[in-house]
Amino acid sequence: MKEFQGVVGADWLFTADEDVDTYRDAYSPLWGEPNEYIPSAAVAPADVEQVQQLVRIANRYKLPLYPISTGKNLTYGSTAPTYSGSVVLDLKRMNRILNVDDKRNFAVVEPGVTYFDLYTYIQEKGLKVWIDCPDPGWGSPMGNALDHGVGYTASPFRDHFGSHCGMEVVTPTGEIMRTGMGALPNADSWQDYRYGVGPWVDGLFGQGNFGIVTKMGFWLLPQPEAMGTATVTVPRYADLDPLIDELNYLEDSMLITGMQEWGSPLGGGFGARSPELSALMAGGWPSDEQIEAYVRAHGGAAWQVRLHIYGPEPVIRASWEYAQQRIARAIPDAAFELEEVLKLPPTRGQIRSHERQPHDDHLGIPNMITFGMMARRPNDPDNPPQGHVDMFCIIPRTGQGVRQVNRILYDTERQLGMPSNASPFRGPTHWYHRCYLMGALGVPSYRDDTPDRSAKNRRSRQIYATALKNLAAAGFGLYRTNVAMHDLLVNQFSFGDHSLRRFQEAMKDAVDPNGIVAPGRYGLWPKRLRDQSRPNGPDAPAAAVRK
Amino acid sequence: MKEFQGVVGADWLFTADEDVDTYRDAYSPLWGEPNEYIPSAAVAPADVEQVQQLVRIANRYKLPLYPISTGKNLTYGSTAPTYSGSVVLDLKRMNRILNVDDKRNFAVVEPGVTYFDLYTYIQEKGLKVWIDCPDPGWGSPMGNALDHGVGYTASPFRDHFGSHCGMEVVTPTGEIMRTGMGALPNADSWQDYRYGVGPWVDGLFGQGNFGIVTKMGFWLLPQPEAMGTATVTVPRYADLDPLIDELNYLEDSMLITGMQEWGSPLGGGFGARSPELSALMAGGWPSDEQIEAYVRAHGGAAWQVRLHIYGPEPVIRASWEYAQQRIARAIPDAAFELEEVLKLPPTRGQIRSHERQPHDDHLGIPNMITFGMMARRPNDPDNPPQGHVDMFCIIPRTGQGVRQVNRILYDTERQLGMPSNASPFRGPTHWYHRCYLMGALGVPSYRDDTPDRSAKNRRSRQIYATALKNLAAAGFGLYRTNVAMHDLLVNQFSFGDHSLRRFQEAMKDAVDPNGIVAPGRYGLWPKRLRDQSRPNGPDAPAAAVRK
Repeated sequence: MKEFQGVVGADWLFTADEDVDTYRDAYSPLWGEPNEYIPSAAVAPADVEQVQQLVRIANRYKLPLYPISTGKNLTYGSTAPTYSGSVVLDLKRMNRILNVDDKRNFAVVEPGVTYFDLYTYIQEKGLKVWIDCPDPGWGSPMGNALDHGVGYTASPFRDHFGSHCGMEVVTPTGEIMRTGMGALPNADSWQDYRYGVGPWVDGLFGQGNFGIVTKMGFWLLPQPEAMGTATVTVPRYADLDPLIDELNYLEDSMLITGMQEWGSPLGGGFGARSPELSALMAGGWPSDEQIEAYVRAHGGAAWQVRLHIYGPEPVIRASWEYAQQRIARAIPDAAFELEEVLKLPPTRGQIRSHERQPHDDHLGIPNMITFGMMARRPNDPDNPPQGHVDMFCIIPRTGQGVRQVNRILYDTERQLGMPSNASPFRGPTHWYHRCYLMGALGVPSYRDDTPDRSAKNRRSRQIYATALKNLAAAGFGLYRTNVAMHDLLVNQFSFGDHSLRRFQEAMKDAVDPNGIVAPGRYGLWPKRLRDQSRPNGPDAPAAAVRK
Repeated sequence: MKEFQGVVGADWLFTADEDVDTYRDAYSPLWGEPNEYIPSAAVAPADVEQVQQLVRIANRYKLPLYPISTGKNLTYGSTAPTYSGSVVLDLKRMNRILNVDDKRNFAVVEPGVTYFDLYTYIQEKGLKVWIDCPDPGWGSPMGNALDHGVGYTASPFRDHFGSHCGMEVVTPTGEIMRTGMGALPNADSWQDYRYGVGPWVDGLFGQGNFGIVTKMGFWLLPQPEAMGTATVTVPRYADLDPLIDELNYLEDSMLITGMQEWGSPLGGGFGARSPELSALMAGGWPSDEQIEAYVRAHGGAAWQVRLHIYGPEPVIRASWEYAQQRIARAIPDAAFELEEVLKLPPTRGQIRSHERQPHDDHLGIPNMITFGMMARRPNDPDNPPQGHVDMFCIIPRTGQGVRQVNRILYDTERQLGMPSNASPFRGPTHWYHRCYLMGALGVPSYRDDTPDRSAKNRRSRQIYATALKNLAAAGFGLYRTNVAMHDLLVNQFSFGDHSLRRFQEAMKDAVDPNGIVAPGRYGLWPKRLRDQSRPNGPDAPAAAVRK
């Protein structure tokens, strides 16, 4: 710690309990348990050179470092390390926006830059590019991408890792490395071409612990002329399949690249089921015929999807016209509504003017709206008593995938003796293009003042782990998870007796011989911790070194 | 060899000179030289299990294997290994098309599948998807992608590695590994989501030697309704900058995703310069004012770009209308021509009906047309006496990049005392989206019966190496190169005293401890060969072990 302090100064090394406690995961499902994931200290370097110095010191003492950008990925662990006792390497001070180019349409940022920062910079300079934002507007574009985070504007920009181009990395042994064209001195194409020459290493830093990323480029969408918002409603439960097929065509052809917002007038979102729907489900999972009869008896509309189309207004209208033709040909009685064509950039009022929901996300405007949707105390909104642990699994873009996951959730609820909330009408989430995600049994996590907190959190973890395993057994894997579940999730990806993990482990040991960068992140442990301590789930014996 | 034969049978192990000679690079710039890159034998396994067995045997004897798919990447080395004496692992027999899905729009293939195979399969089954083809129609989609190859239809599909989703790999120690969702048993989303969980390793297998890829998925473009072909002509040399800016907008907005075909009515392609243009260049590189005056005196059109727009006809027309508005606003006197809107699928006749050039490439139809463009003997077209070594460097999408590279080529020609063929009017090539490539000083390579072959090839190598280094010094790197130039190219990517290569080397040694998979590919050598034998260029002392 003394050596760390020599690098960053006394102000930026945090060892006192009241400071270090702020680096706990405020919504950990292991809050207050002996095996909660907690750091021993935190250190905040000012620049890349300080990062290198800290890494060299950490190597001398075999001291694990857990790098974070802004640490705002609540539900996935936020600032908490995957190995208790690690020192959080807080990169918040490295917050320079290094370049935003609205001719070649890219940005280069440091880890501490937030979506709010980047948006404000672009607005103030009058640059004609959009960013793509996830739920946490206070989060870091870099941190989000490195966690395989997602957003809400046009594909492929919603895939934040997939939209990056070029990285600078401090390796686990303290060297500075640039990837892609960044490895060629004097190259001006670092954000234009990703691969450089030879093996492309960038993938290793997403959900990985192969180094500390200190700069990262992102491809941006040029500011569109307009955004069309339109809705398709289809009458039959079975219409899901052809509707998805047609939307796949439209998206993969890059005709409608906006996010599909799926829903059903019959309820299938995250709210509680209606009494009528609960009655349908009371006798076990209903047959397709029963479901179709229910749809006919309750308004005759099974599925609804809202589409966002970006471009000049005539292109939007021609694309929407074509979409209607295709879908009408595939699905008799499909209904269509063009809700609006919003000329861009919008006025402040227009962003919030849409009658059904605010538009911020779909316009690339960072916000914190989603952070208000979970349990809040009305009289103390800044201090929510509970959080939740998100659970989204990857499914193919097929009706079959949607039906299978809804059925697995129903069966899991029954297996666990839970009140059933599952529904045949829950639709997919369309963050990534080329696949859907299904929100599954995300669970609440409870903090300090909750009565029976420990038992409630244990129950949440049990539900989460059971659903995760049931989904995985059927071939549905979560795309990310809370630090408490990294091992459990990665254990499911077992093809070839875990050959992928062994391959990763061999490389990890080679580039990080002392195992100092984020040990345990996404189940990848350095050799010295691997055999003694791999936890098999959140309730396995604690592998953690307590503070 | 006896053990190899026990795995594949006598028919599929090749050790006789007349067989092994077919695995030389027929157009090697080192043809017949002592340091030509040549194999010692070849072996062709029937399936993944045989690949595993061969790898295990190779490990016992520390025998290098050089995997090829179809080996048709002429100009880049085709079947020749990067380390002489390696045994070519010829995967041509593994040629199953495992799946083509025209609802989710992907394909899964083995290494020996060719573009012709895949196209024929799709046509015969009446599937409504396109493939994206590079010049060699007899090449392998997998091999091409793993070499960072490129094609001609819509972006981002032209980026073949960037369009892949999911791999199966035999590791250098003989394990079978699947990446992304392929690591989750029972997952049906292997081709829908790339990253799986944890660090994403796929990038290591492109231009890499981290394993032997045995299956690979690719995202496909759904068959479009039509293709519009249109041309923009601009009057001034300086109009290049705003024209590129506008095209960047249109491409990055996904409004015009087809390949831009750049040219100039004033000559700047690969043919010889006109006498008038040579006169302009005779007194040294002309000033911008001289160039503009030359343009005015010779027809008043400096640049021309042909665009391809895919989609339903009304969307094509609306997009083209918008493109004209934008470009006309930015560039006074720009001229526009919509050449045709071709309804798809085309008839056989329509593919070749376009008056200026055949459409095969832009319609995703595999062909061998480009293979006819270089030096052929009219009376013996199947046995061309010479080939060439391609040279394309990455440039940013800016007029500045185009001008810089054209000037470097001019200076290099003078430096080498070559007849000057450089031109201010050479335009970029638009294979990758988000960057351009510039064809630079590709050189001829000479075969058996050429008089003074050895001296001519030496001169070609000198020209190539000089241009490569001059370009790299200014920040322009080749995106791939012939096996004879791998070390030379990678040596230029030296940021941080070659920190990227050291990082890759550490991982290579970890997963391939005996250094048996493609040693030397893209400058990445295993530990046992690294120190003794890194060649520093094609004319450095031969590192190779001669057969």
